[in-house]
Amino acid sequence: MDSASRARPVIALAMGDPCGISPELTAKVVALEEIGKAARVVVIGDRRVFDEGARIAGVTPTVEFVDLNHLDPSTVQRGVASKAGGASALANYRHALRMAADGKAHAVCFTPFNKQAMRLAHPPYEDEIGFTSGVLGFKGAATEFNILEGLWNARVTSQSPLAKVSSALSIDSIVGALELTATALRAAGFQPPRIGVAALNPHAGDGGNFGREEIDIIEPAVKKAKAKGLPADGPYPADTVFVRAKAGQFDAVLTMFHDQGQIAMKLLGFDRGVTLLGGYPFPICTPAHGTAYDIAGKGVANVGAARAALLLAVRMAHRSTTASLLQI
Amino acid sequence: MDSASRARPVIALAMGDPCGISPELTAKVVALEEIGKAARVVVIGDRRVFDEGARIAGVTPTVEFVDLNHLDPSTVQRGVASKAGGASALANYRHALRMAADGKAHAVCFTPFNKQAMRLAHPPYEDEIGFTSGVLGFKGAATEFNILEGLWNARVTSQSPLAKVSSALSIDSIVGALELTATALRAAGFQPPRIGVAALNPHAGDGGNFGREEIDIIEPAVKKAKAKGLPADGPYPADTVFVRAKAGQFDAVLTMFHDQGQIAMKLLGFDRGVTLLGGYPFPICTPAHGTAYDIAGKGVANVGAARAALLLAVRMAHRSTTASLLQI
Repeated sequence: MDSASRARPVIALAMGDPCGISPELTAKVVALEEIGKAARVVVIGDRRVFDEGARIAGVTPTVEFVDLNHLDPSTVQRGVASKAGGASALANYRHALRMAADGKAHAVCFTPFNKQAMRLAHPPYEDEIGFTSGVLGFKGAATEFNILEGLWNARVTSQSPLAKVSSALSIDSIVGALELTATALRAAGFQPPRIGVAALNPHAGDGGNFGREEIDIIEPAVKKAKAKGLPADGPYPADTVFVRAKAGQFDAVLTMFHDQGQIAMKLLGFDRGVTLLGGYPFPICTPAHGTAYDIAGKGVANVGAARAALLLAVRMAHRSTTASLLQI
Repeated sequence: MDSASRARPVIALAMGDPCGISPELTAKVVALEEIGKAARVVVIGDRRVFDEGARIAGVTPTVEFVDLNHLDPSTVQRGVASKAGGASALANYRHALRMAADGKAHAVCFTPFNKQAMRLAHPPYEDEIGFTSGVLGFKGAATEFNILEGLWNARVTSQSPLAKVSSALSIDSIVGALELTATALRAAGFQPPRIGVAALNPHAGDGGNFGREEIDIIEPAVKKAKAKGLPADGPYPADTVFVRAKAGQFDAVLTMFHDQGQIAMKLLGFDRGVTLLGGYPFPICTPAHGTAYDIAGKGVANVGAARAALLLAVRMAHRSTTASLLQI
């Protein structure tokens, strides 16, 4: 691809669950003039489902399409998780991942999946990270970032029961998460990025009175990360680190466990945000909200988060190693 | 006291740490016309320190005062935690508590304490709850509520290290916290109150996949509480329960541990809020913010949270059993 194509990177956009808002959302987002100018979007899905989505959204986009022709829209029951719906979303996503892995796209996006439908179609399905690494044969560390406007959240542990969070933390797992976070932030244009690290215990352990993980694990990890040139600061009490970030002190907060970040991000309006799967050779972005079965087919789905997901993918595609490779 | 006094309850207002904004804040809040109309406020402290605070705040309040005459303002070094400062705050607070316990006040308020100064003056000082129960000889359950505008937060465990939260939870501790919360909400005028209960694990444990405390402890506790007529709902995932509360679905959220609630409350602006010590025979309220050593003496302290603390004390005094007793 030449420099003109670099200015307008190729985004493989996989259609998500057909029983929710994904078809109308896909049509709506590719119809945005801003998106057409920023990227060459290639939609992957069943063309009939897409056209039905466009009709619902009231848009008539011109679009590059990979038609897998695998789902008759007359069989789709809106608002209900189904095996056929999950299978189609998985096929679309697999195809998009392979396009990017084969150098035919700079980045991957997808409209919302339904986890229940994914499991009906593919029982071993746990989450996007596990599935993606499997399809790509990727053995490295990958993680999920939650992004709302200028604020990123990454976490050291994810679906760990709360009682097991402490034992899942280590200096290396924290330094590894900081490396992934700094890399992704740099790829998204933060130069230099600023990362605030959350403590684990109340009042950051209050000097050891309310827990010792800060002293034994998190502080040494931040020190080690800094020695490696990583932009880490903390640990800060979890109940103030997001207040600092919101005030502009950090670009990203690294939390120790799932809800520590999600409580803050959801209150700040994360449903309008973007989830990025990071650590892979190319960016993978999706709107943070779900399939919204309750409003599917009504043409009222808000395109804001899908738009933000595509624009983040474009921004990162410009800077990623994949982008450089594709130019050759 | 007669019904006229009930309409204007007596609030014993203890001056907090003299090295921070407490003196100017105390003067500023009692100077508010709205407070004078709502309550008979009796300030407890050193009159010279109060007068200096009034001068800084630029107010000339008429005030009922219990002058303990125990702190020469010329010895007060602003911005530094001191033993003398802690000792004066403790003496003021002790006096206010005894006034209420003796039926001479309907409620207690205090301007911010500095924990370090409290410990310098009284090394066994851990927190307000421990000290208050000690002074009152109170053996019952007491707890701290964090209140921001219409939203209350109570917690089952407080300063527990995160790794020990799970083992500190029990059906009885949760039901007990729900009882305290419902009682305090009713005293503050919520009829009937609505309490959302937070889960412990990510995605509320996802049916046991990410932890079993929801199934084994929290759900049975909510069921038991409901059977007792307590207004409890949940458990809800911790990352959505505050979104629901913010949208008006609950008056209070019961969280399982400190940061679960504090992350949310601080992001929502809890520094403008009120801390209530509940479970005692009379309400005890204080602004949620601290001593603000950095702006002490500058006359710029915002009176909003102190005003809210006094107005909550007034509202609860009207409804408390103490208020009824005092009328006799």
